[in-house]
Parts: sequence; C-alpha cells; structure tokens
Amino acid sequence: MKGHNPDTRMEPWRTSIVDAGPAHIRVRGHDVLDLMKEATFTDLIFLLHHNRLPSIDERRLFDAILIGVADHGAGAPSCAAARLAASGNRQSLSAAVAAGVLTIGDEHGGAGSGCMDLIADGVGRVRRDGIPPATAAGVLVDEAIASGSRLPGFGHRVHSNEDPRVAVLFGLAERSGLAGDGVRFARALEDALAERVAPIPLNIDGALAAILVDLGFPSMVGKLLFIVGRVAGLSAEVLEEYTREKPMRITIPVTYDGVAARVRQEQE
Amino acid sequence: MKGHNPDTRMEPWRTSIVDAGPAHIRVRGHDVLDLMKEATFTDLIFLLHHNRLPSIDERRLFDAILIGVADHGAGAPSCAAARLAASGNRQSLSAAVAAGVLTIGDEHGGAGSGCMDLIADGVGRVRRDGIPPATAAGVLVDEAIASGSRLPGFGHRVHSNEDPRVAVLFGLAERSGLAGDGVRFARALEDALAERVAPIPLNIDGALAAILVDLGFPSMVGKLLFIVGRVAGLSAEVLEEYTREKPMRITIPVTYDGVAARVRQEQE
Amino acid sequence: MKGHNPDTRMEPWRTSIVDAGPAHIRVRGHDVLDLMKEATFTDLIFLLHHNRLPSIDERRLFDAILIGVADHGAGAPSCAAARLAASGNRQSLSAAVAAGVLTIGDEHGGAGSGCMDLIADGVGRVRRDGIPPATAAGVLVDEAIASGSRLPGFGHRVHSNEDPRVAVLFGLAERSGLAGDGVRFARALEDALAERVAPIPLNIDGALAAILVDLGFPSMVGKLLFIVGRVAGLSAEVLEEYTREKPMRITIPVTYDGVAARVRQEQE
Amino acid sequence: MKGHNPDTRMEPWRTSIVDAGPAHIRVRGHDVLDLMKEATFTDLIFLLHHNRLPSIDERRLFDAILIGVADHGAGAPSCAAARLAASGNRQSLSAAVAAGVLTIGDEHGGAGSGCMDLIADGVGRVRRDGIPPATAAGVLVDEAIASGSRLPGFGHRVHSNEDPRVAVLFGLAERSGLAGDGVRFARALEDALAERVAPIPLNIDGALAAILVDLGFPSMVGKLLFIVGRVAGLSAEVLEEYTREKPMRITIPVTYDGVAARVRQEQE
Repeated sequence: MKGHNPDTRMEPWRTSIVDAGPAHIRVRGHDVLDLMKEATFTDLIFLLHHNRLPSIDERRLFDAILIGVADHGAGAPSCAAARLAASGNRQSLSAAVAAGVLTIGDEHGGAGSGCMDLIADGVGRVRRDGIPPATAAGVLVDEAIASGSRLPGFGHRVHSNEDPRVAVLFGLAERSGLAGDGVRFARALEDALAERVAPIPLNIDGALAAILVDLGFPSMVGKLLFIVGRVAGLSAEVLEEYTREKPMRITIPVTYDGVAARVRQEQE
Repeated sequence: MKGHNPDTRMEPWRTSIVDAGPAHIRVRGHDVLDLMKEATFTDLIFLLHHNRLPSIDERRLFDAILIGVADHGAGAPSCAAARLAASGNRQSLSAAVAAGVLTIGDEHGGAGSGCMDLIADGVGRVRRDGIPPATAAGVLVDEAIASGSRLPGFGHRVHSNEDPRVAVLFGLAERSGLAGDGVRFARALEDALAERVAPIPLNIDGALAAILVDLGFPSMVGKLLFIVGRVAGLSAEVLEEYTREKPMRITIPVTYDGVAARVRQEQE
Repeated sequence: MKGHNPDTRMEPWRTSIVDAGPAHIRVRGHDVLDLMKEATFTDLIFLLHHNRLPSIDERRLFDAILIGVADHGAGAPSCAAARLAASGNRQSLSAAVAAGVLTIGDEHGGAGSGCMDLIADGVGRVRRDGIPPATAAGVLVDEAIASGSRLPGFGHRVHSNEDPRVAVLFGLAERSGLAGDGVRFARALEDALAERVAPIPLNIDGALAAILVDLGFPSMVGKLLFIVGRVAGLSAEVLEEYTREKPMRITIPVTYDGVAARVRQEQE
Repeated sequence: MKGHNPDTRMEPWRTSIVDAGPAHIRVRGHDVLDLMKEATFTDLIFLLHHNRLPSIDERRLFDAILIGVADHGAGAPSCAAARLAASGNRQSLSAAVAAGVLTIGDEHGGAGSGCMDLIADGVGRVRRDGIPPATAAGVLVDEAIASGSRLPGFGHRVHSNEDPRVAVLFGLAERSGLAGDGVRFARALEDALAERVAPIPLNIDGALAAILVDLGFPSMVGKLLFIVGRVAGLSAEVLEEYTREKPMRITIPVTYDGVAARVRQEQE
C-alpha cells in the first residue's frame, strides 16, 4: 500500500532551479548575492525560465514584453477582479493580487501560449514540407475557418486597427537580429488572415509569442510571462484601491431575467 | 541544521478530522459510508467544524444560515469577481470560484467573525462584571464611536432598513430554544446603536454571529461558514457565466484622472 | 469606438439566478426566507444549479455526493495546499480556502466533468447507433488505449481495489429508481476496462458523473459539485491549521539536482 | 434606493495609473511605447508604485530587492503551494501561480509591511521626541517583549545566523547614499534585540523594509514588492512542475490523532 501508510515520511522533492541553504542561495548555479549586485530583475526572470542569463538584446526584448503587458487600465478583467477583491477583502493584499491573476487565461492575457503552439506548428510545416511560410499560414487560417475557431494572438478589443505595441516589439527584434522564423511566420499569419477573412492585426500576445518562439522558450512561457508582467500592474491597482477608495465601494448593476416570483400555495 | 538538510524526509502532518485508508474513510470517527446514506451535507458541515453531529434544531439553524448567505445576486463583489474570472479565464472553473472566495473578508461576508468577537466580549463583560446586557452594549458602542470604527455585523448596503433574513434566523433560534446570551446581546447592541447613533439594523452576518456564539463555535467559523455557503452561489454564477455569456464580455469603464501625458524632450 | 469611451457607463449584467432588492431576495423565483425556514442547504445547491428543487430521492443523492467528496484527509492536494496557505498567510481565511480550491482540476477532484462527457458520448452512441452499451464501452476504451489517454473517473491512488463510496452512491441511485443509462454505462465502461486493460474500478468522481448524467446536469457540474462539497472540508482543515498549528510550521524538503555552482571569473 | 435600481448603469471607476485608448497607452503619463524601448521592467515597477521613474541607484536597489526575494527553493511555502496546485490542477497556469501568491502574508514574505510600520514608528519617535535611535529601538523591543509579539523582519528559518542578502542590500544603499534613517533604525533594532533578547538578525523582509522607508514608499509596498518579485520564482517553479513531474505526484503523509472510530448501534 505504498505511499499511504501513515508512518511513511515524505521523500524530498527535486528541483533544478534554486539551491538554498543556511549560507548560500543559488539560482541555476548563480550566487544570488552576485545577481543582486549586478543583474537586473529581468535578467533573473530570463534565468529562472531559461537556465542561462540573457544577452543585452534578449534582455531588451524581455523588458519590452514585460512593460508592454504590465497594465492596460483599471478596467481590464484582471485589474478589475483584483480591485473587486481589494474592495471586499481588506485583510490580504495577496488575495487581491491572486484574484487578478486568476482572471488570466486563453481569453485574457494567455493567448501567447496558444499562439506559440500555432507558430511552432506553422514553422514546423515550412521546414518539414518545404513550403513557403505564406502557404503554411494559409493552410492554418483555412483550418481555423473550417473548425470555427479564432487564431490566438490576433485582434484586440481596444486596439482594433493596430496594437501599437506590436511594431515596437518587432522593431526591437529586427534591429537586434533576434527576429527569426517565429516573427516571420506571425506576419505571414497576419497576411493570410487579412486575405482570407479580414484585417485582424496581431496583438501584444501574438507579438510576444513570435519573439518567445525565436528565443527558444516552451509555449507555457507565453502565458507565464504575461502573468509575471501583469502582476506588477495588479500590485499598483490594488495599492490604489486601498489608498484611494473606501471598502465595498463597488456594486455591479444587475438585471434579473429569470423565472418570476413563485406564489406559494398555502398549506393546510 | 535541522529541517534544512536536503536529505531530511518530512514527518507526517497530524490531523483530527479525517482518517482515510484504502478500505475506510472516517470523518471525526464516523464512517463516511454511513454518513452518505443517512446524514445531510449540512450535518457533515457541522460535524467537520464541531466534532459532533448537530441536533435537528441545530441542523435547521445551519441550513438557514447557509441558505441565507449562499447568493445575493450576480453583482455582489464575490459573485462579480467570480464572473470576471470566468469571463477572462475559461480554462478553470476552480479559478473562477476561487476568485469569488478571495473577495470575502471583513468588509464582504466576513463580518460574522468580528461580530462573534464583539458579542463574546460583551457577554463576557455581562457575566464577569454583573452588568445588564444593555449597559455592556452601550459601553461597546461608545468605544466604537470613540475609536471611529464601525460595529461588524450591522448595516447593509441593500437592506438598509432591515435585513429580512435576520428575523427568520432569530425566529428559528427562539422557537427551538437555542437562542441564548449571544442572540440577546446582539439585540442589545442593535438597541444601543439605535439610541446612540442611528437605527443600523443587524445584517445576516451579525445574525449568524449571534447564533454561532450560542452554538459554541469559535469566531473564525463566522467567516468560514459564510464562505462554505457562498461557494454554492459562486458555483452557480460561474456556471451561468460559462453557459450564457461569451468570453471577455466584461469591460469596466474607467476614467483616468492622473498626471497628463508627458511631453518628451528630444534627445540629441 | 464602442465600449472604450471613458464616459460610457456600464450596462447592467443579466442573471437568472438571484433577484435581490431592499425588501426581497429570491433564488430562481423562490423567496429565500421560505427556503431558510423549510429547505436544506442541499436543496438550495440543487436549485441553484438546476432551476427547480430536488425530489426527496434526488436530495439524498446530492447529500451523498457532497458528503462523499467533502474531505479525504489533510494530505490530499487540495487540503494540503489550503494548509500551506494557512500556514504562511494568517491574514485571510478566504485566501487559504481559495488556495485549496485552486488545486482542483481534471487530475484532482475534477474528473467528474470529463467522465460525464465520456458517459454522454457513450450513451449517445448506444441510442444513435442502436448498439449495446458493452459494445459502445469497448469502443471508447479502445479509443482511449489508442490515444494513450486514461479514462476520467476510474482508478484512485488510495482506493486501488475499490472505492467504497461508489457502491453506496449506486445503491442509493438503484433503490430510488434514479439510476438510468448513465449508471449502466459507467458500469459497462468498468467492465470493458477490466476486460481490455486491467480492473481499474470507478472512483467517486466517476460515480457522481454517472448519477449527474442521469439527473440531467451539464458536465461542468461534475467539477463544480466536487468544489462545493470539498470547500466544507477545506474550511475545517484551515480551521484546524489555525487553531492547532503554529504559523510557518511547514517546510517541504527539497533536493537540488540542477547545474553546479558557477565559479565566477574575477573581473579586472 | 440609489445604486440598487436594476436600471442603473454603473459610473466609470477612476484611476491615476494607466490611461489606455485605441491609439495610446500611458503609465502615469509616460507613453508605454517609449518605456518599452528605453526603460527596464524594474523602472516600470517603480513607476507604477511611485508616480515617477527611479534614479540609477534607486533602480539598482529595486533590482536587488526583487532578485533577492524571487525564489528561495521549491520547498518554501509559496513555491510548495504553487507546485501542489500545479500537480492537482493541470488546467490553469494562473491557478497554480495564484495558489503560491495566496501563501504570502505577514508570516511568509509579507513581514516587510509590518517592519516598515515599525521602523516608521521608531523614526517618528526619534524625530518627535528627540531621543537617540538606540533609545527608541529599545523602547520598541521592550514593548514587543511585554506584548509577547515578535518583531517583523527579524529572524529566518534557514538563515538563522545571518541572512546574507541583508548585507548586500544595505551595502548598495550605503554606497549610493540612499541609506537614511530607515536603514539606521533597522540596525538599531537589531542591536536592541541582541542586547535584550538574543541575536536575531534582520532578514530580507526587514532589509527591504528599511530601504523602502528611506525611498519614501507606503508600508503596503513592503508586501507588494515581495509578491511582485516572488511571482517570477513561482512562475519558474510551476513551469518545472509541469515539465518535469507527473500530475498528482504529491501526497503529503498524515497521521490521524482524532477520536476513534465510532461503533454504530444496530438499528431495529
């Protein structure tokens, strides 16, 4: 009955990230004291997720991504949920930040992961089948049309014509020579979409997806990096809610459209 | 260097709640199979928090409390946060329910704990100092006025004249003979408040607090029981959001009132 | 620029669950005051998710399900996460309960949803194709074998021979006449699995799935009902952690197996 | 019945942090596109919480703080809770990160806020009463002894002799001239504690608290900055759990020490 004997003690978990003891803390082999003196927080984020420190150009791209996703206004779903939690629960700053994090998924902030899978799929077809990116992109868009699904990383509720952050990210990637097949394929998808459906531009999630593919990250990082960046904004939103607003200020107006009040039969 | 040696295995945790093995599951000594056949979920909630099953009258009070707090409309902070999370993150039902739970604190849904402490304080003064409840209640209200704090468990945003659930709860407690010093002192506080400040009636949190004091629960249960009841409502709200509404339907309107756009000096 | 004008006020949300105003609270048309006096919390849970009150037999099944999933010991992932959060964060009971809820997904506690989809698929094939349940079950098991996936709702880490809660649930369903195609098909899957792979018995998630299919619930309820029941246990686990244990008592032992400490080149 | 009329539309929320529209996103007046090109993520974190960009030395201190708190091993409560959630719930990366965040409170990672209040209290006494820091520190330590409370920001489970990150942080603050009354008073508290109780050195939370006081931040930032930094580590821990470990690998061993199994009386 292995593992369920109440006398069993638990074996240690294993990890390759941090080695911490009374006299040392090392992150992927790097002494954290050295990192505190010389590295940037962005370097550390890269190191935690990639097992090495970034180059100057890679760090610039990470900084641009993290800044680009950190906050998009108090009314974005994640920020609004954090503020609602801060408004109702004044006991715990971490509860409010966590409520904001929980709002992040494929629909809000997390499309980067799906877009990385899509781009990796397309780049794989180009390499494997020897077809041009435009052809592969067209196939993927046709498949999405056939299955009635939307392409993750394209379109934005607010920036419907163009997400201005995309040009900045891709410009940085191009100038540093880090833009590769991922960025090229993302643009091919944008063209195929415009041609076959409508001009639905890349959004920030799609742009970070293309760059993370070119930097060699697994697709989960598309979502995780959004979370890491957005938490900076959630923290500031929660601080503002605590310091500027009264508890319980928020009531969402609701219209009831369910069954009518039931008249009770009198019981004898 | 006890506890930090990477070779150390973890000792088992201890618990007095559930004993589970391959052939048995017992909750506070009761076979869960028997409970499944004969008890109600409300019995189990009582048992989990009190180490014995409730009487019929105690069960009625618990049912009334749990029903009374389960849902107060989609716009209540906890329900609204759950819906925001469901709207942005369609990956995880538990994430949406959890976002709703996180909104619960002293200001929203959790005042029962503070009110239980307040009532226990008052009842203690009555017993210890041999003063009438009205006197002790007056002292506590004066102290709250002096410190500029509000009495937890009194007043409601929607039910400003009277929270109709209070009379039901207290009626059930009176009729079954379970109402005791807690319920009496809660009413004394209501009178003292009306006399010294304004008519600010008990709300559902205050009523459940009074009853939980009389049933012998620790004050943390004031908040926990609200959470257990409200999760039933959060679950239904999340289900409705998933089944009736599109992802990302929610945008909270925002007005910016911060510093103006900064004009950048051109750099040479 | 619809919806993004900062002057726009937000339209009310719609809901068919609760209608609350200053003088009334109705859940799906039922006056909450009546429910508090006469219904059980389990009735309300059924009503919130199904738009009508349960029969006596349906209520019994719901009670049995909610009791069966409420707690499985302090070391279950959801309970352990709630205790870890309670150990590190003593500010917020709701934060600890929420951390437990977040641990629930397809792998822990949430297999009921996947199993409901599976059973509905199988029952649909039986009806549509006019094949016996055993044949349809065999096809589904073969498909799972071919795709290398596991059947949700079968097998349990602790109850590897048999989950004793299953017989109780199915017994109640049989005796009340509520067991239907869902329960029958779940048993057919169990047989097909035993024949083709190994005896991997239904677990509690699988049993509740079969019953919820027969009661006419959508598959999301498989996960949600587990959450509603488990929160009762999480609440008790958190209460025990606060009252019996010191903060920060928990350290998980870890072995580092990553890259070795990096020796720094001295810089001139 | 203001605010509860179902026809009421919600007024916009106000914010001074982000102004976002179709063609612009500004953070505290700064164009986010400029920030993406030129600023670091650490600059942005400072800006979000302080309404201006940091100096080079302030940025160095923020980087050192964020790096210092980002991760302390997979077994730290926040990291362990994130891994438990990732192990049980494979649907949602954000759920796992959020479970880790929820573990952060006064006891784990959040002592910085309490320590900032303590230091601000002490520095205020020094200025107001014209007493030396050592005297004020002694008074505060005596008060803590009298009330049986511990000083937040002192002592560490692993680094019991000395937290090596403290010297690095204070060294950076001293060399840049940013160390002020806050850092001095934290050291005075350490001395008073050693003299009156035992050598209980400052930990990383205490060191960041002293520095944040000197940089002019409100005390909530002590906790929030820990959260922002730790989320980078939580993200990496969750990624490792998903990529290296199987779902549901974690079972915490438990010993039951509650009431014995109850023998049921047979019912006629």
